[in-house]
Amino acid sequence: MSVAEVVSRARCFGGEQRVLRHASAETGTEMRFAAYLPPQALAGAHVPVVWFLAGLTCTEENFTVKAGAQRVAAELGLLLVAPDTSPRGEGVPDDPEKAYDFGLGAGFYVDATQQPWARHYRMRSYIERELPALVAAELPADPARQGIMGHSMGGHGALTIALRDPGRFRAVSAFAPICSPMRCPWGEKALGGYLGPDRAGWRPYDATALIEDGARVADILVDQGGADGFLENQLMPELLEAACAKAGIPLTLRRQEGYDHSYFFIASFVEDHLRWHAARLKA
Amino acid sequence: MSVAEVVSRARCFGGEQRVLRHASAETGTEMRFAAYLPPQALAGAHVPVVWFLAGLTCTEENFTVKAGAQRVAAELGLLLVAPDTSPRGEGVPDDPEKAYDFGLGAGFYVDATQQPWARHYRMRSYIERELPALVAAELPADPARQGIMGHSMGGHGALTIALRDPGRFRAVSAFAPICSPMRCPWGEKALGGYLGPDRAGWRPYDATALIEDGARVADILVDQGGADGFLENQLMPELLEAACAKAGIPLTLRRQEGYDHSYFFIASFVEDHLRWHAARLKA
Repeated sequence: MSVAEVVSRARCFGGEQRVLRHASAETGTEMRFAAYLPPQALAGAHVPVVWFLAGLTCTEENFTVKAGAQRVAAELGLLLVAPDTSPRGEGVPDDPEKAYDFGLGAGFYVDATQQPWARHYRMRSYIERELPALVAAELPADPARQGIMGHSMGGHGALTIALRDPGRFRAVSAFAPICSPMRCPWGEKALGGYLGPDRAGWRPYDATALIEDGARVADILVDQGGADGFLENQLMPELLEAACAKAGIPLTLRRQEGYDHSYFFIASFVEDHLRWHAARLKA
Repeated sequence: MSVAEVVSRARCFGGEQRVLRHASAETGTEMRFAAYLPPQALAGAHVPVVWFLAGLTCTEENFTVKAGAQRVAAELGLLLVAPDTSPRGEGVPDDPEKAYDFGLGAGFYVDATQQPWARHYRMRSYIERELPALVAAELPADPARQGIMGHSMGGHGALTIALRDPGRFRAVSAFAPICSPMRCPWGEKALGGYLGPDRAGWRPYDATALIEDGARVADILVDQGGADGFLENQLMPELLEAACAKAGIPLTLRRQEGYDHSYFFIASFVEDHLRWHAARLKA
């Protein structure tokens, strides 16, 4: 019997776009995620997996319907998994002022230690352990070949998860990631709220700090829009760039002139990212 | 001074995705539409235009964010225009029971003659005359090279508008169009409601009836999902197929096995449609 139930399925570029739901032990809620099975997987192959972690306010739906990634995944034979960005449902606390950058839709890919967040806000363990086990058990995925990417808060998630467990991922990339949450308003609010005031405990959740503290990956691809309104105060790719340079991590940081923070930006470059992942997953 | 005001703009595949709004004399409301300007247009060229008419419940947004058409339009140098599907705003009457298939989001591309619809529900004249004049005046469009496509209710719109004015359009295609509104529940409700009980007055709003009555276009491309839940009772491509065969109109009707009625279906085949249009617009 499957743990995950199929909410919807639709043929797409010869493959199948599914939305699934399951009871999560980590978050103590029902969680949804989207999975695109390329034609090769429908034909019986176990294929490489690319994870996409979304940004603030998003669910499993945004990337799935807006990025146009299925076309390229179908060509390359990649299974795409797009999780939700926080626990949801009755009993899950939200930001007291319903702010968009904390609480629902803003799990920040951390395991919260503070009340009232600690019970449900366990997105780190959910993304790192529970959901990968479910994907490996119930979808035609090859767990030995995984890549991870994300956008904004999800770019932060992708980078930090890969840096903490480089053996699991052969490829990592990000669109407009929050490069150092410890040093920007979004991150300080989220990490302070979920983890408390001791900033030493924030470092495993900060890509730049992780690299400064010795974490390594083989290489990183980052696209950053030059007209992104969050560039200077929240994203700060120059911090990641400096840390990678010092650590000797090859970072391909592409500043895309005129592009903003939207999915129109992601759609424009997602093909490059998927080819980056495929080259490393199939090597 | 421009008549249309830019609501948003985002760089996308080297071009620019805009949403615009303007006061419509036809509908007596503010109307929104989306326009994608390919890189060639940003560089100063006046480029061919492809219209996309959306289906029930949609706005200018659905095709714009879900179809992935900008990538191909950028390559081919096509300006994409996606209008809204009905008037909206204070004073615009809606279906008394707020049904999804009549009133707001369901203008059916007709000029209503019945009360209380006749004042605002003038989507035929809006799409055929007012918006094309505005696009020609304010965007880098070449009005001599226009194509039109649509989905479901918008497929009906594209086919009927092209059949009534074949001189204006060099190409027409549709995704899962309502092929004969006079003979399906969606169409009978809409045409009866907007136009009254005299079915003779419905024929200009029925692609199959228009062809039976002598209307002609050079050729038509239609994609229809084989797993579309509306296929048998609402869409009925076999009626269009029979009319085209009798009239000698070359119809390329592709039954796409396993595909449903969603934008995952549209995204999978929009490249074929845009290439179909480009081949005829650039001939």
